[in-house]
Amino acid sequence: VATSALLNKLSDAMLSNIKNLFPICRSITGEGVRDTLRYLQDLNRELVIHDVSSGTQVFDWTIPEEWNIENAFIEHESGAKFAEFSINNLHVLNYSSPIDTFLDRAELEPHIYTLPDQPDRIPYVTSYYSKRWGFCLSQNQKNAMPAGRYRAFIDSTLKPGELNYGELIIPGKSKAKILISTYCCHPSLANDNLSGVVVASALASYIKEKYPDPTYTYCFVFVPETIGAIAYLSKNIDHLKKHISAGFVLSCVGDDRSYSHVQSRLGNCLADKALTAALVGRENVKAYSFLERGSDERQYCAPGVDLPVCGFCRSKYTEYPEYHTDADNLDLISRDGLKGALTALTSIVDAFEFGLKNRISVLGEPQLGRRNLYPTLSNKNSLLTDVRMRTNIIAYLDGKHDPFDISIITGTPLGSVVQELVTLREHGLIAAD
Amino acid sequence: VATSALLNKLSDAMLSNIKNLFPICRSITGEGVRDTLRYLQDLNRELVIHDVSSGTQVFDWTIPEEWNIENAFIEHESGAKFAEFSINNLHVLNYSSPIDTFLDRAELEPHIYTLPDQPDRIPYVTSYYSKRWGFCLSQNQKNAMPAGRYRAFIDSTLKPGELNYGELIIPGKSKAKILISTYCCHPSLANDNLSGVVVASALASYIKEKYPDPTYTYCFVFVPETIGAIAYLSKNIDHLKKHISAGFVLSCVGDDRSYSHVQSRLGNCLADKALTAALVGRENVKAYSFLERGSDERQYCAPGVDLPVCGFCRSKYTEYPEYHTDADNLDLISRDGLKGALTALTSIVDAFEFGLKNRISVLGEPQLGRRNLYPTLSNKNSLLTDVRMRTNIIAYLDGKHDPFDISIITGTPLGSVVQELVTLREHGLIAAD
Amino acid sequence: VATSALLNKLSDAMLSNIKNLFPICRSITGEGVRDTLRYLQDLNRELVIHDVSSGTQVFDWTIPEEWNIENAFIEHESGAKFAEFSINNLHVLNYSSPIDTFLDRAELEPHIYTLPDQPDRIPYVTSYYSKRWGFCLSQNQKNAMPAGRYRAFIDSTLKPGELNYGELIIPGKSKAKILISTYCCHPSLANDNLSGVVVASALASYIKEKYPDPTYTYCFVFVPETIGAIAYLSKNIDHLKKHISAGFVLSCVGDDRSYSHVQSRLGNCLADKALTAALVGRENVKAYSFLERGSDERQYCAPGVDLPVCGFCRSKYTEYPEYHTDADNLDLISRDGLKGALTALTSIVDAFEFGLKNRISVLGEPQLGRRNLYPTLSNKNSLLTDVRMRTNIIAYLDGKHDPFDISIITGTPLGSVVQELVTLREHGLIAAD
Repeated sequence: VATSALLNKLSDAMLSNIKNLFPICRSITGEGVRDTLRYLQDLNRELVIHDVSSGTQVFDWTIPEEWNIENAFIEHESGAKFAEFSINNLHVLNYSSPIDTFLDRAELEPHIYTLPDQPDRIPYVTSYYSKRWGFCLSQNQKNAMPAGRYRAFIDSTLKPGELNYGELIIPGKSKAKILISTYCCHPSLANDNLSGVVVASALASYIKEKYPDPTYTYCFVFVPETIGAIAYLSKNIDHLKKHISAGFVLSCVGDDRSYSHVQSRLGNCLADKALTAALVGRENVKAYSFLERGSDERQYCAPGVDLPVCGFCRSKYTEYPEYHTDADNLDLISRDGLKGALTALTSIVDAFEFGLKNRISVLGEPQLGRRNLYPTLSNKNSLLTDVRMRTNIIAYLDGKHDPFDISIITGTPLGSVVQELVTLREHGLIAAD
Repeated sequence: VATSALLNKLSDAMLSNIKNLFPICRSITGEGVRDTLRYLQDLNRELVIHDVSSGTQVFDWTIPEEWNIENAFIEHESGAKFAEFSINNLHVLNYSSPIDTFLDRAELEPHIYTLPDQPDRIPYVTSYYSKRWGFCLSQNQKNAMPAGRYRAFIDSTLKPGELNYGELIIPGKSKAKILISTYCCHPSLANDNLSGVVVASALASYIKEKYPDPTYTYCFVFVPETIGAIAYLSKNIDHLKKHISAGFVLSCVGDDRSYSHVQSRLGNCLADKALTAALVGRENVKAYSFLERGSDERQYCAPGVDLPVCGFCRSKYTEYPEYHTDADNLDLISRDGLKGALTALTSIVDAFEFGLKNRISVLGEPQLGRRNLYPTLSNKNSLLTDVRMRTNIIAYLDGKHDPFDISIITGTPLGSVVQELVTLREHGLIAAD
Repeated sequence: VATSALLNKLSDAMLSNIKNLFPICRSITGEGVRDTLRYLQDLNRELVIHDVSSGTQVFDWTIPEEWNIENAFIEHESGAKFAEFSINNLHVLNYSSPIDTFLDRAELEPHIYTLPDQPDRIPYVTSYYSKRWGFCLSQNQKNAMPAGRYRAFIDSTLKPGELNYGELIIPGKSKAKILISTYCCHPSLANDNLSGVVVASALASYIKEKYPDPTYTYCFVFVPETIGAIAYLSKNIDHLKKHISAGFVLSCVGDDRSYSHVQSRLGNCLADKALTAALVGRENVKAYSFLERGSDERQYCAPGVDLPVCGFCRSKYTEYPEYHTDADNLDLISRDGLKGALTALTSIVDAFEFGLKNRISVLGEPQLGRRNLYPTLSNKNSLLTDVRMRTNIIAYLDGKHDPFDISIITGTPLGSVVQELVTLREHGLIAAD
């Protein structure tokens, strides 16, 4: 019950946080990311904001200049305005160079991005590593732009500065680490990826509240996608390779249509097993191979990096129609969606904190009847589902199957497995070794 | 031909034995089990009847009191009798406490067990580890009981005594053991499990007759289910863990509708492979995972016990409609059903006795033609099925695939594989090492 | 482009060679095999013709007498001739003893072979290891034979001589060998197996032209089926077991209906993986288990021989209707069919020559954008198929997955994988170790 109340409280907070963070214009560098990280720091004071200077070499990449923006619009000679940044920050090509120029509609054309097959949606477009300026409009908005002269105005700056990311470590008794990585570089897109940001933050709160003295060390990172993950990895690779037991990249975890598991490169690491178990018994679960990856699992699983990390989404990025458009807004997010993602992750945490290696303390089947864990009357229909679940879990408590294995083998939701383990331990049926 | 005659003789004996054993009222302790074991001792004189005193601790369990029963019935004030033990011993709740009392129909109600969804069937109900008294009736019989006063009479005893089980060892040249375990604690139920009892007994006779000096040691145990298996295991666990190569729990092997393999806990022990092979080419074969277990494979495969044992049924317990009702009677049993189960097991024995590791004695394909094992004329349709079977078997005679592997890989019934191995050995084509 | 021109030149040559070789009457020994090998020697001068004397013991077999034939026919008393060898050499039972005798139609009957279910086709029938004489006719031809006296005339000889096979070695820097084995013992059958003979010969030419200093040693053998492979193996077994990395038996590779992979005995050798990859993305690909084998993979994969060899066909022997009939003629062969088989094999050679172990030279994802290997603008639909292919290939360049693995895992045709590897190496992205 305490846990249930905690989860409800956190679910409310996630919704509220996502609303507060939505308006900020983020990119891979700049004030937007820093504002976002400072907000997260208010929620979990342990969060540290790191900075890496422009021009720093990180693996095969170089930290780009810092981008900031004040305003942007297109103005027709008639005074009519289009693509106003103040109305929707998606209207400006993310990372756009500054511009202030007058030109004909035809000259403006190559600088306008639309989605012809979703004509009422503004697309989210970026050009990080090649200097461009541009605007994003819905196809309908573009069609409504009259002929004539236009002013293209983007009040942005690209200057040497820094890239920022947040790191929140909850230290445990053991050096073994669980990594939660999520990205905080997209502008006003709710599911992609403010959902990941607030779910990660809520998970940190859950762990601190439920496990004041945890066994595992939990490491949360909030990074600009790709370049931020690479920067974080390049600073921490040796330590991470030694200590990470399992990691999860959270992305698009705020809608309530499905659950998606983006497998690690080889598809068989502990994180894959943990997430598979956490999704047992849920509806609309789909596993995607690493060939379908798209977020920072790309970096964590790259050859030579090889961390045991997989991706976790509700509806997977690129698979839902609102993806990378202005329809990925607060309407797409639901409390159930966020809570579903959170509880999948808390069930994994609960399993790790219970302990992975458990052995039944007796030889042969324990006599459950005398412990009131089994019906004493045996008739044709007496083997009820929950007793069957109990004996099935016991059957695999051999010290070789962890709670994730047991969940998957027996088809029991991971949360129920852990709950049952708690009951068995209370009855002295888990060996103490 | 000799083998075929032997199998026919044993099939006749199985049918006859099952008829003789059917009327006895068995339970997990008491005279019924002893009578049954003495009958089996008459068939195979090597059988030893063991006893374990009430109150003895066996693993997590305690041997219960010994139960015996003389008579039982319900009598209406009109003199009409119901649930007469003398008519069907299923009418009394198995292990029922004694009672002799007068009470109203409504007071009697909680002591009556029926199967509302099979209204003309008397259920088989037990209460071993919690003291109860009760009667089992068909729903229709219960419905016919008039209002009024009743006498409930159960002339049973529950006293310190002993639990018994039978052990029949056929010693072989090697210490490696094949275990056959079956249970003998159910009252007048034919398929569950007199079928297991008589098939095990016939298999022992087969081995003694066909292999006067066997390689393997065959160990047959006839135990009360659960508590008997646990008692047997607790006395023999170290020895069994060292020496058992494969074991089979026989249960419900007397009908002719299907073949069922209840896999060991991990599903990959030698017994699983042997039974899979023994069922190649038979009809209506179904493999059930350990999650569907229900008989003493529960004990033999429990964590820490971990013997290489699986379960074998024709129609699996709990899956056939007559299960645990009075319809599980002699009508359900067929000679073909029993013989089908027996020949599956004899094919496994034949494979073990032939030897598991066999290597073809030549490099490249042997020239079968000059040994009259291959057609000398090659035309488009000349590769007949049996020649193809022969060359396929030879292809896997590499010293690494046992006859079970070869049967499964090539889709050849295990009996045919062993027969072919005999032929190849006769032609000097099996290496002597 | 150079490679493409080379493949076209070789495809033309294959068609021309198959036409030249078609008329020769081959058998497992005799002038026909020698003529065929001499023809192949003209194409690749390195080819050595080996001889093994009749009576030589090779593994479990003995080299039979040498068979040669000048003429054969059946002549009716009316002067009408049937089964004329000069019209089609399939008309004589292959390896037939000589005969010159007069007999009635009924006496002739047991010496005539037909295919009643393909009544207009002349069957290909052999009797190598049991002396017989006989003729092969279509059922319709046989039906047209009038009653009366006949002369059966077969001007063949069976005398001590030799069995011949060709061996063509292209030495490489390493002792590691790729084996290509094909058989050259069938008379005028085009797909079975002149196709194998000319594809092997063209592959040798390809390697010599494209790789003047190859890494691997390529060993081509042209053997009479079964006895020739056994003779070759018996002379070379120790060396082959030490040095063969992968081998392929080419059989029936000249039609354009499908691609067939006949798996090695255990189905998991390097050759299996290589061929699987080489067929990724092609149409009508079918893998057959070793149980469906029929050509010299029987010998190369026999227990104790255990070479990493699988079989490769277009339409698999025994599966296409023209198989072992006179319909297996030049009409069945197509340039596309031969070229398809050749390019599957050249893609395997290209992968071996590129090198099997490759590792990406950077940690994390390489920044492809600055190398013009990735689009710099990211919008919803920008991840084009070829960029996705590129990043997928990079993801598995971990030094543990060879190009065959990468092809299979990513679903990319092997040729495209190798091409991409070349590009990545040009950009310094393949580690030099």
